[in-house]
Amino acid sequence: MTGAKAPPPIIVLVRPQLGQNIGKAARAMLNFGLTEMRLVAPRDGWPNPDAGPAASGADIVLAQAQIFDSVAEAVADCSTIYASTVRRRDLIMPVVDPEEMATAIASSPARSAILFGPERSGLETEDVAVASHIVTVPINPEFGSLNLAQAVILLAYEWSKRQTLSQPPAKDGEPPAPHAELEGLIEQANAELATAGYFHPPERMQVTKNTLRTIFTKAGWSSREVKAVRGVIRALTGSRQR
Amino acid sequence: MTGAKAPPPIIVLVRPQLGQNIGKAARAMLNFGLTEMRLVAPRDGWPNPDAGPAASGADIVLAQAQIFDSVAEAVADCSTIYASTVRRRDLIMPVVDPEEMATAIASSPARSAILFGPERSGLETEDVAVASHIVTVPINPEFGSLNLAQAVILLAYEWSKRQTLSQPPAKDGEPPAPHAELEGLIEQANAELATAGYFHPPERMQVTKNTLRTIFTKAGWSSREVKAVRGVIRALTGSRQR
Repeated sequence: MTGAKAPPPIIVLVRPQLGQNIGKAARAMLNFGLTEMRLVAPRDGWPNPDAGPAASGADIVLAQAQIFDSVAEAVADCSTIYASTVRRRDLIMPVVDPEEMATAIASSPARSAILFGPERSGLETEDVAVASHIVTVPINPEFGSLNLAQAVILLAYEWSKRQTLSQPPAKDGEPPAPHAELEGLIEQANAELATAGYFHPPERMQVTKNTLRTIFTKAGWSSREVKAVRGVIRALTGSRQR
Repeated sequence: MTGAKAPPPIIVLVRPQLGQNIGKAARAMLNFGLTEMRLVAPRDGWPNPDAGPAASGADIVLAQAQIFDSVAEAVADCSTIYASTVRRRDLIMPVVDPEEMATAIASSPARSAILFGPERSGLETEDVAVASHIVTVPINPEFGSLNLAQAVILLAYEWSKRQTLSQPPAKDGEPPAPHAELEGLIEQANAELATAGYFHPPERMQVTKNTLRTIFTKAGWSSREVKAVRGVIRALTGSRQR
């Protein structure tokens, strides 16, 4: 877990074209707890009336968005800058994947920023050159078609996985029952099955019982579930006994 | 690449509403190398003219999409089924995060499926009850607003990350039975229990059935074990019928 010492990354949209995509990016950010958006020379100016509806409620991100004329100005207060793009032949710089980027951001006390290019063309060489690293999402080489909001959400998601913001790790609902309860179930089943003539021929009985034990043990049922299964067995045999 | 031993998951869209969202989901899938889409009762029928343009070139996914009337039919050949949803109060079943799901899928030789609900309402309890696990994306608790394609892309991305790993570790034992076999067991149990008067009072019947479904699903039994349990049920009720 990272504490206050590792600030969240700033999302920088470089010359974004459609207001709708700015809104979708804001929504993607807020889904994973990112709130600081910076816009470099948005094509249609700012504010953009198309952004709000597409943000689906992430208005706070749009309201706080800051506008800059150049990438250099937008990241002036940031120490580590990632350019989200494919590997570039024209620039030699470290290339990381989203996990490596997220780990680095979550363990750095310095401010970081992630640059995303315009929807159609992506980042220019000059934009990427401002960055210290390239971050590339490993994508299907035969069908690479990530849109802006998708690129933002994948990187925001990787970042958030390292945060306390995320819910506590998911756990199974209930612990398995104490062994004695499972043993009670197995005894009940064996007794009822013996009465029903299930263990036939007799010389196979132990093998069959072992199989049943494995089946019941493997299930990993909780106390509540063991009780329910015992009730089921009672119900299934009940009419017979009456 | 993991090879034939760990097949990619099938993406099942349950009662999707807009063709556009089906197309976006197809694009999200193909971005990370998933191609098998199944549709359960799409609201506006199929094919849907809005799907193609939104797929941005992922036409092969749409062209191969299969249509089913019910969730159970759509996953009949799948052994492990994940329901993409938030944690449910009405069902007690294992909850995993995307990483845990992806690791499990990438190391299992059995077919798996991931269920996604309709855009507005999400999966119904009955849909989730078909699954063996809930998969929940850990999201900003104050702004959870993942759309269908975003949920698909995050899970597809996590899956694809495991594909660079060499091969799945060998698993002990037998793979879980195909879902249709489990469904047969559940139907048999329900029918016998109904005969035995187990579902009482009637208004609790559906809840009780969901609980039993979870109990049987959680067990992860193989084909051989499902057959054995069916034999047990037959034996327990057999003397009654005689």
